[in-house]
Amino acid sequence: MKLGVFSVSGSEPQTRIGRVQGDTVVDLGPGSSVLERLGEPQGEVAAADVQWHLPFAVADYVDFYSSLEHATNMGRMFRPDQEPLTPNWRHLPIGYHGRAGAVVVSGTEIKRPHGQRGAGDFGPSQKLDVELELGFVIGKPSDAPVPVERALEHVFGAVLVNDWSARDIQAWEYVPLGPFLGKSFQTSISAWVTPLALLAGRRVEAPKQKPTPPAYLAGGRDWALDIELEVELNGDVISRGNARGLYWTMPEQLAHATSNGAALRTGDLMATGTISGPHAGSEGSLIELTGNTSFLADGDEVVLRGTAGGLELGEVRGRVLPA
Amino acid sequence: MKLGVFSVSGSEPQTRIGRVQGDTVVDLGPGSSVLERLGEPQGEVAAADVQWHLPFAVADYVDFYSSLEHATNMGRMFRPDQEPLTPNWRHLPIGYHGRAGAVVVSGTEIKRPHGQRGAGDFGPSQKLDVELELGFVIGKPSDAPVPVERALEHVFGAVLVNDWSARDIQAWEYVPLGPFLGKSFQTSISAWVTPLALLAGRRVEAPKQKPTPPAYLAGGRDWALDIELEVELNGDVISRGNARGLYWTMPEQLAHATSNGAALRTGDLMATGTISGPHAGSEGSLIELTGNTSFLADGDEVVLRGTAGGLELGEVRGRVLPA
Repeated sequence: MKLGVFSVSGSEPQTRIGRVQGDTVVDLGPGSSVLERLGEPQGEVAAADVQWHLPFAVADYVDFYSSLEHATNMGRMFRPDQEPLTPNWRHLPIGYHGRAGAVVVSGTEIKRPHGQRGAGDFGPSQKLDVELELGFVIGKPSDAPVPVERALEHVFGAVLVNDWSARDIQAWEYVPLGPFLGKSFQTSISAWVTPLALLAGRRVEAPKQKPTPPAYLAGGRDWALDIELEVELNGDVISRGNARGLYWTMPEQLAHATSNGAALRTGDLMATGTISGPHAGSEGSLIELTGNTSFLADGDEVVLRGTAGGLELGEVRGRVLPA
Repeated sequence: MKLGVFSVSGSEPQTRIGRVQGDTVVDLGPGSSVLERLGEPQGEVAAADVQWHLPFAVADYVDFYSSLEHATNMGRMFRPDQEPLTPNWRHLPIGYHGRAGAVVVSGTEIKRPHGQRGAGDFGPSQKLDVELELGFVIGKPSDAPVPVERALEHVFGAVLVNDWSARDIQAWEYVPLGPFLGKSFQTSISAWVTPLALLAGRRVEAPKQKPTPPAYLAGGRDWALDIELEVELNGDVISRGNARGLYWTMPEQLAHATSNGAALRTGDLMATGTISGPHAGSEGSLIELTGNTSFLADGDEVVLRGTAGGLELGEVRGRVLPA
């Protein structure tokens, strides 16, 4: 039931909607977004013969910061003289808008970005990093705040996300308005969108929150997702984690993001932020895994993978090209 | 030559492209974006009879922070224990992504947003504010960094922008990832896009920069724009300023925003950030005008206006509705 947008090399240029079943793609007819009304099966194609495209047009892209462990690790490195968690962190799901136009499909190569690495120091990033995330895709718009208990009505499904980050650019630019060019060069997502219904069986209780958040965020605790995640670098798995440990859940994030009246549009992408676990080897970024000492080299290939009880969510693959 | 998208009440629902000439709108035929190929004149309509719509579909919305006076004033209020300007401010045009889906046309009412005003304190914003800005509309996409000297090739024209802000929500949420719900409820733009060619005669030299920025930002100093601006509140002009004083110019901002390889899309909106001058009464927000003491009340009506040597850029109008 995982859905993507594909074309077959050598055939007409029009893209088609496909449902992935093992090594086979069921052809659901012409289309350019899995969020469109889906057609009836029109045949099958071998998965090996298809090229995948971006599975939907991204409207707005929001990236949250919902892993306590990731926020703590980053706080220690970026603001060593302060408490790692900012005072607001446990009271609301912190997030920011990313660049929707920079979202590309798995397999797209990643060109090392240029940027300012310090005062007047412009050149190729020396700290190109990955961020292992889940993303939720909005399938039904809203025109008023969406309460926690109705958030799921608006979510079509999930993708895997690699929010590539240039840590040197980010560190220099991000105060006071947040990340900008350290993130906006590229964000890669899996070619397949896994409908939320397929993940319902993986629902578990989220970690306990302290303090209890305000009433408008209450009720989303039963929507942590038991999804196993891994980061592979040049063929070696360098991190294994699970999405179930995230402090803030998707219904809480949606309720928060719309609590000020902001509307949801079909195609909005709401990502979790980097998913890091409490144990060494479960961090979702190189800066955490290596203690800010080692980053991506030209030619490196990164693959993110997610599995939910035997169901593969697909992969996000990218190879680093020189600047 | 100012362009907008209009409909005439009582006629067919389809929108049309219009060229504004005084009290008359020249009908350029059906369309939903002034960035489309424009048709031939098909007649005229009295401006009083038309309803204006959003003049283009916003792709990504970037908001910069290019007024030295605004950044200094905000730094003093938000971070009173530190230097008002962050160390990066004079080295690069700071910016962040806003919510493209929240951009609406002038005349749209503005509903007071709810949000967290402090730890666990959720309710209607008590500090609803305006931000007086110019926005530049991308008419030609790019797929590689755009050097300063070619930035203008990508800009179709300018709009006036009111980036409504909830200062209490913003102050609590914005560290470390920047503004989110304090801004994402609504951003209003003028109904008319003024093509850049009409503003070429208003080019003046921008203020001197110190220190000189890096080479990739050099060459944009001759693109400050002599545009007179004003903020009207309930019929009284409460601020008068000019865009010519901005520290960073539009070509510099475009070069910066694409320097990491980020592509421009048709419909990207790049706004200046609040435009504040050095004199009392030239600040572009209430928080600056009133020293963080007075904000918008329900029922208040705000109108932003811009004039470039007799050419009116239009207005951005909005009335505050209760939460």
